[in-house]
Amino acid sequence: MPDPPQLRISYPAWVHEHVDWSARLAGEDERVRVALALARQNVVQASGGPFGAAIFEQESGRLLAVGVNLVVPLNNSVLHAEIVAFMMAEASLGSWTLGAPGGAQHALYSSCEPCAMCLGATLWAGVTRVVWSATREEARLFGFDEGPVFPQSYDYLRRRGLSFEGGVLRSEGRAVLQLYRDRGGIIYNG
Amino acid sequence: MPDPPQLRISYPAWVHEHVDWSARLAGEDERVRVALALARQNVVQASGGPFGAAIFEQESGRLLAVGVNLVVPLNNSVLHAEIVAFMMAEASLGSWTLGAPGGAQHALYSSCEPCAMCLGATLWAGVTRVVWSATREEARLFGFDEGPVFPQSYDYLRRRGLSFEGGVLRSEGRAVLQLYRDRGGIIYNG
Repeated sequence: MPDPPQLRISYPAWVHEHVDWSARLAGEDERVRVALALARQNVVQASGGPFGAAIFEQESGRLLAVGVNLVVPLNNSVLHAEIVAFMMAEASLGSWTLGAPGGAQHALYSSCEPCAMCLGATLWAGVTRVVWSATREEARLFGFDEGPVFPQSYDYLRRRGLSFEGGVLRSEGRAVLQLYRDRGGIIYNG
Repeated sequence: MPDPPQLRISYPAWVHEHVDWSARLAGEDERVRVALALARQNVVQASGGPFGAAIFEQESGRLLAVGVNLVVPLNNSVLHAEIVAFMMAEASLGSWTLGAPGGAQHALYSSCEPCAMCLGATLWAGVTRVVWSATREEARLFGFDEGPVFPQSYDYLRRRGLSFEGGVLRSEGRAVLQLYRDRGGIIYNG
């Protein structure tokens, strides 16, 4: 590799038309719906895997950043929806943490339970709450492995100040995975 | 965020002068030394945290990609050395996996035991072997949390075909962490 690549990561063009950046959403269901709509649209647009995420300021409900799975289109196994959301949120704040002392607290909303990589990333990103729709069991039914996540993984993170809630609007989360399968989407690393 | 950022990720300029891209290294100690030299240089150049990584083709010993920790300079909590190495390796191959059927097998060498995020990422990146120098206990001594990694995390990954070896050239790995502390490097998310 004499000339190592410069990586460029940006949202698919459709994201800009589908996201209301002025949103202030107080309810957690509403926030999960943003993640679900992104996941669904990512399937419809065939721009990546069936996963979406959004990061909100806890108190104000301000939408800070979103993410969609970009693994296949960008040839980058790291770019799960949650990872994209973390990177974009931090770039937007100009900070390597969303949990700076004295700053706003941030929460991650995801269309599906985070995998081992993304769960580990929550700690470094500094979010204090993580909420998802479809569960790991549902992801597995559709062929997506979640990696080494155990009950004590959550215990560990709770001791670091994070809180979790899963299965919010679960049938909608499952429907996105179903849609992806119906359309013949590829199950990478199944 | 009306105009979401395009992320650009590239190596610090010094990497190109310090890496021999024509290297064919058969021995695992030699490969770990590449990761250690990158970690040390990242401290000396003050271009990020005290961590380095390298990805080699298992059989040929060809160096495919390297990584250094870029969390603070690029305001991106995801950019641990291992993650940068995975992203660069996949970009170099033009593939979202380093484990394509029929292709070469790849191994990750790191100056320090991977954290929960990076360990999860090994599965999606498709490497079949992971080798590191300083252990999680040593990282913790210097203030770096490794996140929710348990013995069963490794068991899980072994069942998926990965093999692991830690503590290779351990005193050299520890010396890099010591150097970082001696120079007053910041411990983010300590």
